[in-house]
Amino acid sequence: MEISPDHPRYRSLVIRERMSDLVKEGVVAPTGLIAHGRGEAFDYLLGERTTDNALLAERTAAAYLLEARHPVITVNGNAAGLCAEGLLSLARAVPAKVEVNLFHRSPERVERVVSYLERVGGQEVLGRVQSSRLEGIASDRAMCCTEGIYEADVVLIPLEDGDRAGALVRAGKKVLAIDLNPLSRTSLESHVAVVDELTRAVPNIERAVKELRDDVPERRRLIAEFDNVLNLRLSRKHMCQLLEGEMR
Amino acid sequence: MEISPDHPRYRSLVIRERMSDLVKEGVVAPTGLIAHGRGEAFDYLLGERTTDNALLAERTAAAYLLEARHPVITVNGNAAGLCAEGLLSLARAVPAKVEVNLFHRSPERVERVVSYLERVGGQEVLGRVQSSRLEGIASDRAMCCTEGIYEADVVLIPLEDGDRAGALVRAGKKVLAIDLNPLSRTSLESHVAVVDELTRAVPNIERAVKELRDDVPERRRLIAEFDNVLNLRLSRKHMCQLLEGEMR
Repeated sequence: MEISPDHPRYRSLVIRERMSDLVKEGVVAPTGLIAHGRGEAFDYLLGERTTDNALLAERTAAAYLLEARHPVITVNGNAAGLCAEGLLSLARAVPAKVEVNLFHRSPERVERVVSYLERVGGQEVLGRVQSSRLEGIASDRAMCCTEGIYEADVVLIPLEDGDRAGALVRAGKKVLAIDLNPLSRTSLESHVAVVDELTRAVPNIERAVKELRDDVPERRRLIAEFDNVLNLRLSRKHMCQLLEGEMR
Repeated sequence: MEISPDHPRYRSLVIRERMSDLVKEGVVAPTGLIAHGRGEAFDYLLGERTTDNALLAERTAAAYLLEARHPVITVNGNAAGLCAEGLLSLARAVPAKVEVNLFHRSPERVERVVSYLERVGGQEVLGRVQSSRLEGIASDRAMCCTEGIYEADVVLIPLEDGDRAGALVRAGKKVLAIDLNPLSRTSLESHVAVVDELTRAVPNIERAVKELRDDVPERRRLIAEFDNVLNLRLSRKHMCQLLEGEMR
């Protein structure tokens, strides 16, 4: 479909078409499009910008990644479709391992997402072989790589579902989520919930990784002082301000 | 995929799978899934219930449909996928014409959506031949049926985009929208914006049609007193209350 650049939702429309094309390629699951739409609505309520408190969460996530012994970034179809290069670049900057982990899991889709990441420069992408299990998840979504998520002490989970976020927390890992819904179980259960759109959040985290690399006191201060409950409340407040403030 | 009925989002997940299956059948457009997700997010903020002010909008929409000389209900892929039977039942109750009108338009998809409606009992569904045009829309989304939307004085548009909603208003029609986003151009430009989920809204409108059928003074009062700006503000306020009130 032709989209006029004059359309008030031009950027969203272009991303929509791309995500929709990636369904045809098998990278994004059809219901992944629905999840993308949910994110769009919440981003709309943020005014499609990074709030101050989201930036603080991003800096704190960077601090956790740098302090980690074994950091892992998980990637699902939507995360790959929206921000593959950004996530790989962040993984190199930390450095962190990258593991493909899908909600709608099948060997074919895992292969497609891993290959997609490899095609845009990913090296040693984990996920083809997942022989360990996370406790407390009934389905095969419990599967993970021994040398990836299973052994990780810090896990960055962009666009993850609540079951797995909870299971990761109960497994004793520090969980950093990127999730536009400040009321989701993922946001509430993680140690740091970044309520920001993925393609804004990931470069911000990478920038903070570079800034904090040699500043151990600052990153420990960020970790010690971060209050996820308060931070989520601020995101919700921003959304309310947009809902109540504007009469467009 | 197997979905456990224990999952906190069970109902949403089942609808998601159905909408996703309807993409394979060509009834729902892939990017229609994204629109569905946006709606889900706003419904989540409503607490997935019909608010008092939404019910008032539904009763007012019913009043407009009954007062109309030539009422038309437009149906796109998502509306058909979510609520085909309900929309057809409402059309019979008014009675109103039904016209298929798609955002992602192709003769094949129009045929699929029309056939889908016919399969679940639709009779005289318009949309296969659209030879009139609405002013002020550049693309072929301007096309409509002469004996349907073009001649209508009142149009009920479930899940419609802002361009077409605006064009219908400028064409002098009374526009009744069903749209979960209280900030959308569709909601702002229509005469009555029902901010409610489609499968709750449509039966509520049908019930009101039956209640108001013989009550001309009440329906005229509803139309005279309805304030769309105020009503939308109340929907936004409900969403804020959920955002700010709950710390789950």
